[in-house]
Amino acid sequence: MRYYSETVERAIHELAKLPGIGRKTAQRHVFYLLKTSAAEVDSLSQALLDLKRKVGYCSICYNITEQDPCPICRSEQRDRSTICVVEEANDVLAFEKIGEYKGLYHVLGGALSPLDGIGPDDLKIRELLARLQNDVREVIIATNPSTEGEATLFYLTKLIKPLQIKLSRIAQGIPMGADIEHADEVTLSRALDGRLPL
Amino acid sequence: MRYYSETVERAIHELAKLPGIGRKTAQRHVFYLLKTSAAEVDSLSQALLDLKRKVGYCSICYNITEQDPCPICRSEQRDRSTICVVEEANDVLAFEKIGEYKGLYHVLGGALSPLDGIGPDDLKIRELLARLQNDVREVIIATNPSTEGEATLFYLTKLIKPLQIKLSRIAQGIPMGADIEHADEVTLSRALDGRLPL
Repeated sequence: MRYYSETVERAIHELAKLPGIGRKTAQRHVFYLLKTSAAEVDSLSQALLDLKRKVGYCSICYNITEQDPCPICRSEQRDRSTICVVEEANDVLAFEKIGEYKGLYHVLGGALSPLDGIGPDDLKIRELLARLQNDVREVIIATNPSTEGEATLFYLTKLIKPLQIKLSRIAQGIPMGADIEHADEVTLSRALDGRLPL
Repeated sequence: MRYYSETVERAIHELAKLPGIGRKTAQRHVFYLLKTSAAEVDSLSQALLDLKRKVGYCSICYNITEQDPCPICRSEQRDRSTICVVEEANDVLAFEKIGEYKGLYHVLGGALSPLDGIGPDDLKIRELLARLQNDVREVIIATNPSTEGEATLFYLTKLIKPLQIKLSRIAQGIPMGADIEHADEVTLSRALDGRLPL
């Protein structure tokens, strides 16, 4: 026996496909699963299957949802004239956690990245522009402060600017709890540019 | 929507049970799985179910195996008079990879750790002693060089020593490629104690 048995190898191979999981980590997981109860493994396995069976994308904002349209797009309490544009569904959750934003969202499904072959057609940009035809008065762009996020921001700005819609981006600056001494130059320069009158 | 939908939450919760996987990592995995094809998720889910259905423990050495006894215990080519005692099934693979050892194994299923409530009865120690009744001439202890591994080594030594069986532990010392300058004191002292005549 130079390797693990076929079944064990296959489980390692499948787990190692998950992002950030190498062969060694996958092996640890497999050994953990072998020691745990069959009921536990069944329930993990079923939860993963349910993901694909029950969860899909909202046909309006492309957030993940079990009902279409998603609860946010259907809600009577939300302000339908404002759309916050984010890269991924987890960004929606980050905003929802603070509980302050009352508008709708639009999930692009990523950011422009020519190096990875991700162009405008790979993101829900056309779908965003279609939504802007219907009484939208403000668009807030909340892409990540990365090269790809910034490229997406500039691309969207060029497209939305001519539409006479109020357009903004979320602020960049020193995060809470960090010290100025250790902030990188770009962050510090953005924090200075974005200074607010007191 | 303050949280993800129930199905998504359940998948995150199940994945976060794996060792070393926190909620954040589990979330990343779930978003990866939502983006990947249903076939991929099916095949991961099936691989995990197969783990519990097809893989069990060898009733002789307690290594993981799809057939009982395991291929090593059944092999005609192995020296049945020698048993190498290891903590976990992955340790067997580590030895098998070097292809040098021709004896059998005994997998304890862990190491003694009073702090974690793991005592002799939680390991396959009684089963090891039973095997030693049958023409075993040599036992090599290969527990990890950790507090728990050493405790297990001493415990086993006390039990096996009176049986008039050749007993040894694998050597500890400077690993290949490391420099002596940076070796920790315990390793260096063990390397010195274990010096070999030239």
